[in-house]
Amino acid sequence: MKFIKEYRDGDRVFDIYLCKYKQSSVTKNGKQFDNVVLQDKTGTIDAKIWDPNSAGIGDFDAFDYIEVYGDLTVFQGTNQINVKRVRKCSEGEYDTKNYLPVSKRDLAVMATELKDLIASIQNTYLKELLEMIFIKDQEFADLFQKSSAAKAVHHGFVGGLLEHTLSVASLCEFYAKQYPILNRDLLIAGALCHDIGKVSELSLFPENDYTDDGQLLGHIVMGSEMVSEKIAQIPGFPNQIKAQLKHCILAHHGELEYGSPKKPALIEAVALNFADNTDAKIQTFTEVLEGTNETGWLGYNRLFESNLRATRD
Amino acid sequence: MKFIKEYRDGDRVFDIYLCKYKQSSVTKNGKQFDNVVLQDKTGTIDAKIWDPNSAGIGDFDAFDYIEVYGDLTVFQGTNQINVKRVRKCSEGEYDTKNYLPVSKRDLAVMATELKDLIASIQNTYLKELLEMIFIKDQEFADLFQKSSAAKAVHHGFVGGLLEHTLSVASLCEFYAKQYPILNRDLLIAGALCHDIGKVSELSLFPENDYTDDGQLLGHIVMGSEMVSEKIAQIPGFPNQIKAQLKHCILAHHGELEYGSPKKPALIEAVALNFADNTDAKIQTFTEVLEGTNETGWLGYNRLFESNLRATRD
Amino acid sequence: MKFIKEYRDGDRVFDIYLCKYKQSSVTKNGKQFDNVVLQDKTGTIDAKIWDPNSAGIGDFDAFDYIEVYGDLTVFQGTNQINVKRVRKCSEGEYDTKNYLPVSKRDLAVMATELKDLIASIQNTYLKELLEMIFIKDQEFADLFQKSSAAKAVHHGFVGGLLEHTLSVASLCEFYAKQYPILNRDLLIAGALCHDIGKVSELSLFPENDYTDDGQLLGHIVMGSEMVSEKIAQIPGFPNQIKAQLKHCILAHHGELEYGSPKKPALIEAVALNFADNTDAKIQTFTEVLEGTNETGWLGYNRLFESNLRATRD
Amino acid sequence: MKFIKEYRDGDRVFDIYLCKYKQSSVTKNGKQFDNVVLQDKTGTIDAKIWDPNSAGIGDFDAFDYIEVYGDLTVFQGTNQINVKRVRKCSEGEYDTKNYLPVSKRDLAVMATELKDLIASIQNTYLKELLEMIFIKDQEFADLFQKSSAAKAVHHGFVGGLLEHTLSVASLCEFYAKQYPILNRDLLIAGALCHDIGKVSELSLFPENDYTDDGQLLGHIVMGSEMVSEKIAQIPGFPNQIKAQLKHCILAHHGELEYGSPKKPALIEAVALNFADNTDAKIQTFTEVLEGTNETGWLGYNRLFESNLRATRD
Amino acid sequence: MKFIKEYRDGDRVFDIYLCKYKQSSVTKNGKQFDNVVLQDKTGTIDAKIWDPNSAGIGDFDAFDYIEVYGDLTVFQGTNQINVKRVRKCSEGEYDTKNYLPVSKRDLAVMATELKDLIASIQNTYLKELLEMIFIKDQEFADLFQKSSAAKAVHHGFVGGLLEHTLSVASLCEFYAKQYPILNRDLLIAGALCHDIGKVSELSLFPENDYTDDGQLLGHIVMGSEMVSEKIAQIPGFPNQIKAQLKHCILAHHGELEYGSPKKPALIEAVALNFADNTDAKIQTFTEVLEGTNETGWLGYNRLFESNLRATRD
Amino acid sequence: MKFIKEYRDGDRVFDIYLCKYKQSSVTKNGKQFDNVVLQDKTGTIDAKIWDPNSAGIGDFDAFDYIEVYGDLTVFQGTNQINVKRVRKCSEGEYDTKNYLPVSKRDLAVMATELKDLIASIQNTYLKELLEMIFIKDQEFADLFQKSSAAKAVHHGFVGGLLEHTLSVASLCEFYAKQYPILNRDLLIAGALCHDIGKVSELSLFPENDYTDDGQLLGHIVMGSEMVSEKIAQIPGFPNQIKAQLKHCILAHHGELEYGSPKKPALIEAVALNFADNTDAKIQTFTEVLEGTNETGWLGYNRLFESNLRATRD
Repeated sequence: MKFIKEYRDGDRVFDIYLCKYKQSSVTKNGKQFDNVVLQDKTGTIDAKIWDPNSAGIGDFDAFDYIEVYGDLTVFQGTNQINVKRVRKCSEGEYDTKNYLPVSKRDLAVMATELKDLIASIQNTYLKELLEMIFIKDQEFADLFQKSSAAKAVHHGFVGGLLEHTLSVASLCEFYAKQYPILNRDLLIAGALCHDIGKVSELSLFPENDYTDDGQLLGHIVMGSEMVSEKIAQIPGFPNQIKAQLKHCILAHHGELEYGSPKKPALIEAVALNFADNTDAKIQTFTEVLEGTNETGWLGYNRLFESNLRATRD
Repeated sequence: MKFIKEYRDGDRVFDIYLCKYKQSSVTKNGKQFDNVVLQDKTGTIDAKIWDPNSAGIGDFDAFDYIEVYGDLTVFQGTNQINVKRVRKCSEGEYDTKNYLPVSKRDLAVMATELKDLIASIQNTYLKELLEMIFIKDQEFADLFQKSSAAKAVHHGFVGGLLEHTLSVASLCEFYAKQYPILNRDLLIAGALCHDIGKVSELSLFPENDYTDDGQLLGHIVMGSEMVSEKIAQIPGFPNQIKAQLKHCILAHHGELEYGSPKKPALIEAVALNFADNTDAKIQTFTEVLEGTNETGWLGYNRLFESNLRATRD
Repeated sequence: MKFIKEYRDGDRVFDIYLCKYKQSSVTKNGKQFDNVVLQDKTGTIDAKIWDPNSAGIGDFDAFDYIEVYGDLTVFQGTNQINVKRVRKCSEGEYDTKNYLPVSKRDLAVMATELKDLIASIQNTYLKELLEMIFIKDQEFADLFQKSSAAKAVHHGFVGGLLEHTLSVASLCEFYAKQYPILNRDLLIAGALCHDIGKVSELSLFPENDYTDDGQLLGHIVMGSEMVSEKIAQIPGFPNQIKAQLKHCILAHHGELEYGSPKKPALIEAVALNFADNTDAKIQTFTEVLEGTNETGWLGYNRLFESNLRATRD
Repeated sequence: MKFIKEYRDGDRVFDIYLCKYKQSSVTKNGKQFDNVVLQDKTGTIDAKIWDPNSAGIGDFDAFDYIEVYGDLTVFQGTNQINVKRVRKCSEGEYDTKNYLPVSKRDLAVMATELKDLIASIQNTYLKELLEMIFIKDQEFADLFQKSSAAKAVHHGFVGGLLEHTLSVASLCEFYAKQYPILNRDLLIAGALCHDIGKVSELSLFPENDYTDDGQLLGHIVMGSEMVSEKIAQIPGFPNQIKAQLKHCILAHHGELEYGSPKKPALIEAVALNFADNTDAKIQTFTEVLEGTNETGWLGYNRLFESNLRATRD
Repeated sequence: MKFIKEYRDGDRVFDIYLCKYKQSSVTKNGKQFDNVVLQDKTGTIDAKIWDPNSAGIGDFDAFDYIEVYGDLTVFQGTNQINVKRVRKCSEGEYDTKNYLPVSKRDLAVMATELKDLIASIQNTYLKELLEMIFIKDQEFADLFQKSSAAKAVHHGFVGGLLEHTLSVASLCEFYAKQYPILNRDLLIAGALCHDIGKVSELSLFPENDYTDDGQLLGHIVMGSEMVSEKIAQIPGFPNQIKAQLKHCILAHHGELEYGSPKKPALIEAVALNFADNTDAKIQTFTEVLEGTNETGWLGYNRLFESNLRATRD
Repeated sequence: MKFIKEYRDGDRVFDIYLCKYKQSSVTKNGKQFDNVVLQDKTGTIDAKIWDPNSAGIGDFDAFDYIEVYGDLTVFQGTNQINVKRVRKCSEGEYDTKNYLPVSKRDLAVMATELKDLIASIQNTYLKELLEMIFIKDQEFADLFQKSSAAKAVHHGFVGGLLEHTLSVASLCEFYAKQYPILNRDLLIAGALCHDIGKVSELSLFPENDYTDDGQLLGHIVMGSEMVSEKIAQIPGFPNQIKAQLKHCILAHHGELEYGSPKKPALIEAVALNFADNTDAKIQTFTEVLEGTNETGWLGYNRLFESNLRATRD
């Protein structure tokens, strides 16, 4: 496959790309044409279909994978494809990994880690709850593994939600060893469930955008409610534990102004907030450093409220 | 009935009061006795049972209504009852209105207003939802009428939650007339449901204190979840309306730092926030003015961040 | 009249427009020309006078109404008028309603509502004051009706100040019914006077911009001082009422950081602050919704600190 | 005169003191008596009149100067006067300097400095205005010299307002030399007028408390309005200068949250804010140091948000 | 040894205690006596020396260890020692562990952990620096082990600074494993040095209070300067590493408003801030839970801005 | 010399300019060329070297002074130099005053003022310290005189640091006269030293940008440490004075959120903060006014949080 970043002026184009955007437009002479944006994992490129009604131009929509035939030209310093033929592809013709940002970690390995963590829980009610959510509810489990943890910022890639969740749980496991006062079962259960609402807050890739429910309700409240729904199916689940687990989810942003409707009132909620925040910030900084070739100061970063720099030996 | 505020030094005591507090203690001489606080709607009074094991002292606990026989003495400037005999009373022997702060409005009239408001809803799904919550769920409906709207601050009395709810709905109804862009059905439904979680956040009078669930989860999240549970029983309830109604509940405090996990994103959520805030503040100011004989400046009030004063002609 | 939004490439232009902006400039060849911006209620358009000293180009300034003759061309995707002849028009040749944003409500109807409200005041001093301001001071009354309530944000149109004032007063009237503790006379007088300083803070349309006094002093202080000046002409006006009314004006923004030099200390000042804020925010949201064809989420709005959306059924 | 701080148990009392407080009360036995607080410049003391209707007890009210005859006793560790006889004194019998905190600077010297400053103003309009306020308006001039600059905090003594005003003006005069861009006339006029509203915000000593107008309107707005009233009597006073001077007064607290309805927009308003703040803070710190015998750290001070300490060599 | 908490009314006292406070006073009859407060690890008790000049009362000062002989009485509900004889003790007569709060961890074990951590550093310059500070500078090393990490809040006991430092380093070591992008040497060096300034900010136990330098300069700046002084003695120490290490110390409070003069600009500074904050908050919560017998809600905690509670199974 | 602002289309260029920026680039045809930016005190101009390898193009780098020969053309409305020949110049061929912004005050006069101030110090330790820093350390003294006080904002020119330092000291001297409680020696020493760290925080002109140490440590901490290093060379320097002087430096920004790690705890630190802030803000406002031809309102200024305007007579 020839990736988008490799094209030079005059190249012939003949490969499959993801259509990120499509809209009809009209030239100054009143002629109809289509504005299209194509994407692969190396970037995006503008494409024009000047004859949208010609024979070779098949039907397709945004977020379809399409085979494109045409020429690459440079217009005002920017690459652009003059599209001659288009064909919508079927699953199997392409490998989504070439088109979407994906976790560097192996999904299967991460899935195993998740199961092992659940197996390590002592409290039978919490263990049953986690199995219902992450193992028995196959539809949810699939979604959870494909989701990103954010639209932008950190872990914004396929598998990002799972990767972030395991990383937070790993910090919590270390905390539980270092601080014996922590209730490990509650803390690990909170770590695994803290962001499950993101499965409903964000649509899957390639769209990966806020859903209506996500905007109106948010992943904190949706996640807390998902836990309630599952618990309703477990006879005898103690209300005390339910309230404490839901509290950990509700309070995991740590501050009201960050969208948590409650400040942490339990020591496990305090710990979970630190684990979530630590992983989010270190991963964000890591992505900033990976995303630049700049060797000096990287300029003011709004999240960190500071000019950032890679450490030097 | 002789009210607590009426007692003078030397009076004989023989009437029924609510026991607000009871704890065993030991005198300096090592003798056991009971510290008790009695309450009626005019205030509270300390009482001592110096012979807790004597014949006339029946069993009772805090929040029981008890018939007390004894003498009133003044100790260090404060009235105090020397209790000789105590008997725990049964329901029917007393009228709770004499013991608890109660709304000035008639409960039955308010209940009718609530039903009329529900009847005025056009959208069949929303109307069915409101009927399920406030009419068909008899247990909830009873609790809702007895609840206060707060532990302290405003509407902290029996019926206060219903009174506040109707007052907010009344403001919303006026808004809907003045601003035709508002969706009246959604706004009134939001007004009626916005504080239903308080039924679980606060225990009933005479305790009227935060519950465990109230502290850990809060009335905003609990109320939003109660709506979800009822909607799950209404076939075909549109998800769009469900998300919008829940958004109005979640956003009704208006600001993240006031405990709303979402800022208002719909015009009805903006309006509901104003109605709730307007009623809460004006009622609070009203209670401040009613609770004082002071005719000049009332001193600095933390909620209003100002020295307050009654308006003069 | 042909409105600015209707022009297409190649059209002949021959109509009256408001000149919003005019400035002389020089081409790269050193030739003088005039840059002009024309406006009507549908929008604005650039115009060039390439021969400013030719016979057909009459004298005119910014904010004059001018009759323009010329051709419409498209330059870099934007419409532009090549002006051949210009003539300054006299009052009577044009209807300002075609050029300026105007309240949807009928000015005469609103003027009557204002008078009725004043007539409903019981306190003779307050009634006389309101009559002096809004009725007997004909010059002020005219200005008040033509003013907008803001440069941008909400009610930014001819009659907007009157419309906003009546809407606030209407909310206050409802409050006075719902909360009998409120002093209706003081509250209505405060509602009518709260923004009278805007008559001096903003220049009239078509300029509608901050005046020097507006920038240096602000409408809150200027309005409060206008009330003092009028009261000085009413013998025996009680100082108590004067101070309370001025306090309501000074405190109507509710918070020091919003420019009120005092926080509300009277219940009527609290109520007026809610009425002003409620009307401003709901009207702003309404204007946001009216100003878009977007059917989904409207993007982040700084005033509401949220992504906004029109409610759906 | 024997000062309050000098009394010991068993002393006979026979001297003139200021009555700070007086209220009738009833003993437990139902007998009427008067609670009185006496004050001189060394402090205050409780006094009891057990026989308010006896022959030797003359009529008097709070804030009268009274001659007291009685005995000093110690009750629960606190000095207290048992009053036998009381007589209300006339002006001339006492020297108020013994009873009230007074500026260390000579009032006459300060009055001369004020006049010299006014004489140094070049702009004839501003000079006339300052003469009208501080010289020709004899009543205001007297009040201005007797006023304190604050109820507590800094310059809270007779002559404090004048002392603070001159100190601010002195800083401004230095600024005008160091920064020639500053308009000296406007800046000095602003310095002299910036706190004139305090004459109405605070009542005179011995009361020295906020007035109703002070609480409802504040000295910033009242001072700005006083300037307007005087200017109205000066024909031809330029509006530009008037607005700028009033802006300096309105903006002199520097921040909206400190009660200024406008932030400084002119360089003289910026300078005046610094002069006012510098003098206020250094004087406050000075009063903290003068008011303690403590030689080490003085504990956390809320205004300075720090533990304070006297500098050591 | 008989501990302070074990005394009952009438007990004979004859044991060694730490004198926390001593001051001469005078009875109402003019007789001199000494007010003393005694302390051991179980608490404090008031003691009175009614005959300070009698034969059995030896010389001693605050913070001496003294042998006390006397009787225990109860005055107004509080235990109090009536002291008959006092003798100042020498080192060796008492074990300070009985009198001061001490870390639960073994000091020798912690000292070994510290050395092992230093030995694990790869960068020779950083390793040499750490050895110079924590090993070769014997005086500092001793102080460091005896210091507490705070006057109050968390780790406020002998050995607390070392315990907190190791706990932070342990978190950092885990971070370095989980996030390979982190420079372990810099991070561990930062962890070990981040609070070394506390050795100068707080005096040792039993005083454990802020020093003058601590109040005026703070441990962040003092610690950063201590690192500079040691580095000046290491030839060839790279300036780049020096600046980065000092940055980690300066930025470890994370926010300017928490006293860090710089926000974290390096990923190790971000990580160190999280480690410090996580350990401080979890330890604080732990101390809150250990310090109460309360089984329900513990009341509002200002640091956590929430009502706290122990987690329940 | 012909200044950059004077060039017109078609002019011949033959003069010496400072090279602010230089980077190689490639045309669309693959031909190499150099993008250069030239600067003098009147502004900057783009220059292109289309034949970087031709005979007349000598070697040079950014921040060299170069003699340029070429033609001036206008490209897309912007002046641009087509460079034919370039020669790197030696010191002596040009006068840096023509190329860099320089203080309006005479450097020699300012140097004398600095020495006179030091000579006026009474405390021998402080005088010796100031002489060591500003007189005996010739290298530092030179740097100090050439430095600017800021990258942008205020005093951003050669000599700006010295000018600002003297201006702050001048204010402090006036304070010391007006408020005798101030310790003049400590205050003047603080004023002279408060910004010495800027010599290391910013590189010299023409670069005038933050150094690595400046970004990581900041001028407050670096300045405080420089003082420690000098004091270490003065035998017997009292620790009390050292801590107080360092405190004045550390606290001179006045608020933690402005980067001071300590709030002012001494009255001299309070005064120094006011002097620094007063000079900075008035100078900034002055530079705003000097940098505009605008006669009306200057638009919103973020530092002053207000629309600014020049004062009018």
